[in-house]
Amino acid sequence: MVLRTVSRHAELRDLLQNTRQRSLALAAPLSDADASVQSMPDASPAKWHLAHTTWFFETFVLTPHVAGYAVFDPAYGYLFNSYYEAAGPRLRRDRRGMLTRPSLAEILAWRAHVDAALDAAIDDLPEAARTLATLGCHHEQQHQELLLTDILHLFSENPLAPAFAPDAPFPPAARDAAHDWAAHPGGIVSIGHGGDGFAFDCETPRHDVLLQPFALGSRLVTNAEWTAFIDDGGYRTPSLWLSDGWAWVQREAVSAPLYRERGDTGWSAMTLAGRQPVDPAAPATHVSYFEADAFARWAGARLPREAEWEAMAESPALSQMFGVCWQWTETAYAAYPRFRPAAGAVGEYNGKFMCGQFVLRGSSCATPPGHSRSSYRNFFYPHQRWQFTGVRLAKDMGTDAS
Amino acid sequence: MVLRTVSRHAELRDLLQNTRQRSLALAAPLSDADASVQSMPDASPAKWHLAHTTWFFETFVLTPHVAGYAVFDPAYGYLFNSYYEAAGPRLRRDRRGMLTRPSLAEILAWRAHVDAALDAAIDDLPEAARTLATLGCHHEQQHQELLLTDILHLFSENPLAPAFAPDAPFPPAARDAAHDWAAHPGGIVSIGHGGDGFAFDCETPRHDVLLQPFALGSRLVTNAEWTAFIDDGGYRTPSLWLSDGWAWVQREAVSAPLYRERGDTGWSAMTLAGRQPVDPAAPATHVSYFEADAFARWAGARLPREAEWEAMAESPALSQMFGVCWQWTETAYAAYPRFRPAAGAVGEYNGKFMCGQFVLRGSSCATPPGHSRSSYRNFFYPHQRWQFTGVRLAKDMGTDAS
Amino acid sequence: MVLRTVSRHAELRDLLQNTRQRSLALAAPLSDADASVQSMPDASPAKWHLAHTTWFFETFVLTPHVAGYAVFDPAYGYLFNSYYEAAGPRLRRDRRGMLTRPSLAEILAWRAHVDAALDAAIDDLPEAARTLATLGCHHEQQHQELLLTDILHLFSENPLAPAFAPDAPFPPAARDAAHDWAAHPGGIVSIGHGGDGFAFDCETPRHDVLLQPFALGSRLVTNAEWTAFIDDGGYRTPSLWLSDGWAWVQREAVSAPLYRERGDTGWSAMTLAGRQPVDPAAPATHVSYFEADAFARWAGARLPREAEWEAMAESPALSQMFGVCWQWTETAYAAYPRFRPAAGAVGEYNGKFMCGQFVLRGSSCATPPGHSRSSYRNFFYPHQRWQFTGVRLAKDMGTDAS
Amino acid sequence: MVLRTVSRHAELRDLLQNTRQRSLALAAPLSDADASVQSMPDASPAKWHLAHTTWFFETFVLTPHVAGYAVFDPAYGYLFNSYYEAAGPRLRRDRRGMLTRPSLAEILAWRAHVDAALDAAIDDLPEAARTLATLGCHHEQQHQELLLTDILHLFSENPLAPAFAPDAPFPPAARDAAHDWAAHPGGIVSIGHGGDGFAFDCETPRHDVLLQPFALGSRLVTNAEWTAFIDDGGYRTPSLWLSDGWAWVQREAVSAPLYRERGDTGWSAMTLAGRQPVDPAAPATHVSYFEADAFARWAGARLPREAEWEAMAESPALSQMFGVCWQWTETAYAAYPRFRPAAGAVGEYNGKFMCGQFVLRGSSCATPPGHSRSSYRNFFYPHQRWQFTGVRLAKDMGTDAS
Repeated sequence: MVLRTVSRHAELRDLLQNTRQRSLALAAPLSDADASVQSMPDASPAKWHLAHTTWFFETFVLTPHVAGYAVFDPAYGYLFNSYYEAAGPRLRRDRRGMLTRPSLAEILAWRAHVDAALDAAIDDLPEAARTLATLGCHHEQQHQELLLTDILHLFSENPLAPAFAPDAPFPPAARDAAHDWAAHPGGIVSIGHGGDGFAFDCETPRHDVLLQPFALGSRLVTNAEWTAFIDDGGYRTPSLWLSDGWAWVQREAVSAPLYRERGDTGWSAMTLAGRQPVDPAAPATHVSYFEADAFARWAGARLPREAEWEAMAESPALSQMFGVCWQWTETAYAAYPRFRPAAGAVGEYNGKFMCGQFVLRGSSCATPPGHSRSSYRNFFYPHQRWQFTGVRLAKDMGTDAS
Repeated sequence: MVLRTVSRHAELRDLLQNTRQRSLALAAPLSDADASVQSMPDASPAKWHLAHTTWFFETFVLTPHVAGYAVFDPAYGYLFNSYYEAAGPRLRRDRRGMLTRPSLAEILAWRAHVDAALDAAIDDLPEAARTLATLGCHHEQQHQELLLTDILHLFSENPLAPAFAPDAPFPPAARDAAHDWAAHPGGIVSIGHGGDGFAFDCETPRHDVLLQPFALGSRLVTNAEWTAFIDDGGYRTPSLWLSDGWAWVQREAVSAPLYRERGDTGWSAMTLAGRQPVDPAAPATHVSYFEADAFARWAGARLPREAEWEAMAESPALSQMFGVCWQWTETAYAAYPRFRPAAGAVGEYNGKFMCGQFVLRGSSCATPPGHSRSSYRNFFYPHQRWQFTGVRLAKDMGTDAS
Repeated sequence: MVLRTVSRHAELRDLLQNTRQRSLALAAPLSDADASVQSMPDASPAKWHLAHTTWFFETFVLTPHVAGYAVFDPAYGYLFNSYYEAAGPRLRRDRRGMLTRPSLAEILAWRAHVDAALDAAIDDLPEAARTLATLGCHHEQQHQELLLTDILHLFSENPLAPAFAPDAPFPPAARDAAHDWAAHPGGIVSIGHGGDGFAFDCETPRHDVLLQPFALGSRLVTNAEWTAFIDDGGYRTPSLWLSDGWAWVQREAVSAPLYRERGDTGWSAMTLAGRQPVDPAAPATHVSYFEADAFARWAGARLPREAEWEAMAESPALSQMFGVCWQWTETAYAAYPRFRPAAGAVGEYNGKFMCGQFVLRGSSCATPPGHSRSSYRNFFYPHQRWQFTGVRLAKDMGTDAS
Repeated sequence: MVLRTVSRHAELRDLLQNTRQRSLALAAPLSDADASVQSMPDASPAKWHLAHTTWFFETFVLTPHVAGYAVFDPAYGYLFNSYYEAAGPRLRRDRRGMLTRPSLAEILAWRAHVDAALDAAIDDLPEAARTLATLGCHHEQQHQELLLTDILHLFSENPLAPAFAPDAPFPPAARDAAHDWAAHPGGIVSIGHGGDGFAFDCETPRHDVLLQPFALGSRLVTNAEWTAFIDDGGYRTPSLWLSDGWAWVQREAVSAPLYRERGDTGWSAMTLAGRQPVDPAAPATHVSYFEADAFARWAGARLPREAEWEAMAESPALSQMFGVCWQWTETAYAAYPRFRPAAGAVGEYNGKFMCGQFVLRGSSCATPPGHSRSSYRNFFYPHQRWQFTGVRLAKDMGTDAS
C-alpha cells in the first residue's frame, strides 16, 4: 500500500493502543480451544490472527527499525507469516489449526512483549517505520473483522451452535423500509484515494472514470426479499445464474444464504449470538457473488460497478452504505490505472490478488471503527460467503439521446 | 448476441456454403477415432463440433422456422446441445467422448441433410431466421478454431506426436524483428461494435471509455524472449506471479508454455504439423494469463487493457494484431454498460460466462477468414492455454501534468 | 504363473490360431472409434486389448527367442505395455484412450505381422518360448473377456445404448428355478492346481486346507431375488452393509446393480445386445462385493470361501458354476502357502495384486471356451462391478459336536 | 464381541476405576487446545476420546440398565457416537475437531458424573449390564492407545515438534540384538479365544487351522535394518512393492517410515518425547503394510500369517511379541469360521470392518496394561502407519516330502 500521510507520533501511539487493545477485547470470550481450531482453509484460528498481526509489527517495524530489539521467539516467523514470499517460508495456510502450541497465553505474552517494545520505541521511530506501524494497525483491523467471521464459521460447524457473545455485532435493519432509487447523471467522476489519511495501495491512484447515468438502491436487499427469491424458485432456475454460479449451486446443493435454515417455525440463522430467528427487515447477508448476481437478475436490476458505488458514497439518499454489510459490485478486482504496489515485502499486500475476485464496497457490522471509507476496496472470490456480504441493487438510467 | 444487420438472402447463401464446407475440409484428415476422442473436459471431439454446429441450425433455424422440416434424429438434441439450458437437458460436457456412435459418417450424413434443408429454405426464410442462420455461421466459425486447438491437444497426448496436416496453421514471425512502442494520447475513445456487419451481443453496445496515455508493443513477444524469461528463473520467482498463478505453477509443475519441451537439441514444441523445433523469432504461444502477466511484470511492462487494444487496433505501427495469436488483456470479461443479452435461448451465448475469465483480443492463425474484427472479445480462464494465445506488452505514458 | 505342462508344437499352433483368430472375430462389430475410446480408468479401449496382447508375444516370445525377428514398430512397446515394470516405462493407464493413432487397421496389420512370425517360428521354438507363448494365449483369453466388458461399459455411457451384437453373450437362467443347498462334510481338502494343463502361478501350489461343514446354494441368486432385496430396502439399511460398503452406497448413490434401471414398464438393463428387459429368472449380475455381501446378510446366509467353492466345483448338485457369472467369495486374494511368482517379467502377472481384492470363482458368459477350471482365481476390488459378477450363497452346517 | 466370562462385581469395580482413572492420567499433559484439534480424518481429538468412551457407558450401561439415571446432556449422544448406526445419527467423523465446545473441563465433569453413577450402580447391575460395562472398559483401553497415537500425529504436524511427556512410551530395543529363526512344524493348530477372560467377538470362535512348517523371526526388524533397506534403494525399486503399494509410494512421495527424517546429523524421528535421534537397535516403527511387505520381500522373507503368529505366541524363543510394536501379518482381516457378531448395537464393533484391512498381532508400547493377549486381532488399512506398527519376518520351512 501507499501511505498518503504519515501519522504523527502521538496519533500513532493512540492508534496503536486502541487497535492492539481492541483485538484483546474481541478475543476475550474465547477459550484456548476456540482460539486454536481452523474450521476451513479460508478461515484462520483466532490465535493465529492475534499472532500474525503481532508478527507484522515485529518483522516490519521492530526488527529492522529498533536497535537492540530481541525477537520473542525465532520460530514464530515461520508459524505466523501469512503469504509474504519475501519474508521467507511459512506454514501452509491449511495447517494453521495444527498449532495447539504455542498456547493462547503464550501468544498473549508475545503481544505484551511487542506492545511494550513499540511503546518504548515510538518517540524515536523514523518516518518509514511509522508508516509501517500505521499500516500494521490497519492490517490488524482487517484481521479483527476476520477473527469475528472466522469464529462465526467455526461455531456454525458445532452442532451446539454456541453464542460468541450476546451483544455481538449483527447487520441492522434500515431506518426506512421502503426501497427507492437514487439517481446519478453520469459523466466523468474521480475515484480512488487522493486526500489525507491512510489508504491501502490498491485504492490509489485517484483517477477519472467515465460513467453513464445510473441509479443505486436506497438500501440493501432484505431477508424478506431474499425469501421471496427463494420461494419463487430462484435457486432452481438456471437462467438466473452465471454458468459458474449454476455449477456451484448444483455442486454444493445451495438453497439459501449461508447459515440460514428453514425449520418448523420459520427461518433461523446462525449468528455470533447463536442461532436466531431471521428478521425479515434486516439485510440479507452471507451471500456469494453468484447469489448476489442471480438475485439482481431476478429483480430486474443489476449489481453496481465499483466506480458507481464510490461516486454515490456520500449521497444522503442512500442508507446502509457503511457498517452493515459489504456490498458486492460487478467489478472484478484489478489495478487502477498507474497503480504501483508499495515497496518492499508489504507490496505483496494487495496486488498479487488481482485475479478472479470481485470488489465489495462499504463496510460491515464487523468492521472496526475508523476502518471505513469511500475509497475502500474489499475483495473475495465469487463463491465465498462467510463474510457479512449483502446486496445493493443498481440500474441504468435514460440518457439524453434515448 | 445482437445482429446489427441481417444478411440478405444471397449473402447468407454464400456464407452458409462457405462456412459449412470449410468445416468438412478441416475435418478431412481425421479418422473416425481421431474425431471421437475427448482429450480433456475443456476440449470436445471433432465429431462433436461437427454435430453441435449442425444442431444449432436444426434447433434454432429449421425446426422453428421451416414448415415441414423433419428432424434427422430426435436423439441428437440431447447429445449435441452444448450448454443451452433453455433448449433442454443434455449430455454432460465431460462425457462427449463417449459418443463413438453415431459415427463420423452418420454425422456427415446429418450435415448433408441439414445443409440441403437450409439451401431449399433460404429464399423464404424470414428475417428472424436469417438472423439466427447468420449467427449459426459465426458460431460454426468459432467451433472451427476449437476443432483445430482440440485436435492439437489430443495429438499432444499421443506419445507418437502425430501431425494433423503438414500445412496446418501456425503463428508466423513478425515481418520486423525489432520491438517498438506505439503510443496513444489517451482521452475519451469509443469501443464496441456499432456499425454494419455481424457482431456477438457481448461486443455491444458501442460506448465511450476514458483512457490515460499509454503505449502498446509493436509486435508480440517472441519465443526467444520467452526463453530468456525461462532462463532468468521466471517460473521459479514467486514475486513475478499473481497469488493464484504461483499456486498454479507449483501445483501443475509448470516450467514452460504448453507443448514446449527442452531436449538435447534445444527447444521443440508440439504443433499441428507434429513436433517441430521452436522458431526463436516466432511469437510465444500457448501461454496462460498467469504466464502472460508474470512475463509482463518480468519485462517491466504490463498487459494491455481491452479498451487500449481496441483503440489501437487499426494503427499501422502495430503488427500481428490479427491472425497470429490471441492476445491476453488484463481486463476481466464483463458486460459493457447497458449490455443486453440477445433474446431467446441464444441469449445464453455470452452473458452467462462473465465471471472469472479474461478478455483476449485480436485473432489467431487458427481463426477462420472473415471472423476477425476490432471489437471481437474472446475470453478464457486464466489457467487455460490450449488456444493459440500470446502476449503483446503495454505500458503507461507520461501525462501533461507529470 | 507356473506352466505345468508345456504344450507340444502342434497343440500350441492350434491354441495360437484359435486364440488369435477369436480376438479378431470379437472385434469385428467395432468401428475405429468404438475400438479407441476409454470409458473409465478401469477399462481399456478394444484396440488397446488387441495391441497389448500382441505386444506380449512380440516382447516375451519373438524378440528374445526368434533370431532375426524385426520389431514391427519400436514405439509400440511404450504404448502397449500394461504394468510390467521390468519391461520398461509405459503410457499411463488412464491415457490409453488418447491413442487414436495407430489406427485399428494398423493394429490389425501388426497382429498379422506377429501371427506370421509366430507361425513361421513355432516348430523351432524352445521350451521356454513355448511356455511363454502358451501363457500369451491364456493372457489373450483374459483380455477377450475384458474387451467385452469394457465395450459394454463404453456403450452404457452412450445415451443411445447401442447394441454390440444381437447374439452377444448374456448370463442364462438356471435349468432349475428352485434354490437348494448342497452340503459338504468339511475336513481336509486339497485345492490349487496340481495336475496337467495350464494354470496361472497364483493357482499354485496345490495344498491342503481344513474346512468345517458347510453348504453352497445350488444355483446363483436371481434377478427376482435381487428385486426383492431392493424392494425390502436393502440399499437403505446400513446394518446389512460393511462399513466401507455403506460409505460406497452413499457416496455413489447406489440403488441397484450396475446397468439396471427401473422405468415405467419395469426393470431393464444395458446389455451387449442393447437395453433389454430384465429376466427375473436369470442370475443377478454386475454386482460389487459390497452388494454381494449385503445381499447374503439380508438372506441370512454368507458368501462362500474360495476353498469351499473349489471343494464343490465338480458337484453335480450345483448348477451355474461355470460360464454364467463370476461368483464373489469372501476370501481376500492372497498367496497360497509356498507360492512363488513365475520368474522374469511375467512374474508381475499376479503376485503384485495381492492386496485389497477379493477372489471370484467360476467363469462367466464372457469367458472364452477352454478358459474355465476349478482352480481358477479371478480377483477384483470390492467396489468394482463392470464384470459379469454374481452371487452364490453359502452357509455353515452343524458338526457332530454341536 | 462375545464376553466369555462376566466379571464379578468387585473385579468390575476395580477394572472400571483403573481404566477410567488411567484415561485421566494420560490426558493430564494436554491443554484444552491440544485436546480439541483433529489433525487428520483418521485421528480424533483427545477430548473426543475422553467423551466417546464415556458416551459408551452412558448409552449402553447406564441409560438402559440403571433406573432413574439422568443423561448428563442429551446433545452429547449426537456429538460422541462414533459409528454405531443403531445408536442414531452422529457428527461426521472428519468434523470431530470442530467441537471446541463442550470444553475439556465440561467433558471431565461428564466423566465424573458417569463414574459416580457407575460406582453407585455397580452392586446392582444385572449380568447383561456387567458384560457391557466390561466391554466398555476394554473399549476405553483401545481409545487410550489411540489417544496417544493421535496426539503424536497432531504434535508431528506442529513445526515446534512439542513433547507430549518426557517419559512417554516408546518401542524398546530387543534384549538380544541377534536375529534368529524360531521354527514350527506345522500341522493342525487351534487359534482364537476359547478360555476364560475377556475377548472381542472377532477373536471367536476358537477353531482349527492347518499350517505348513514355517519359522518366525526371533525379534522385530530394527531401525538399522530399515536404514539398510532405504540405502539399498528400497523405496525406489518397484519390483519390491505390491502394485497398490508402489502407487502409494509415488503418490505420497514416501521415502522412509512416518516421522523419520534424515538430517545433517543423521536420522531423527518425531516421538511422544519430541524429536529424537533414531536408535539403530530399536525396532522400526510407524510403517505401513505396504512398507512391511516390501521390506520382507527385500529381505528374502515374508510376513507371518496370523495363525502362524498365534501358534507361536507363547514361544520362549521369540522376543518383542507384546508391548513393543503391532506386527503386520499378511492375513486380511476376515471373519473366523462360524463367527457371529455380538447381539445389539455393539455387534457393529468389529464385523463391519472386515474388508480391505490387514491383521496386526501382538501389542505396542502404547497398549494399556492388561490389554494384550495371544488371540488379539488388531486391523488397519494397508497405507496407515500412525500406530506403533513394526515388522516380524517369517519364512517357509522344508517339509518331509521335500
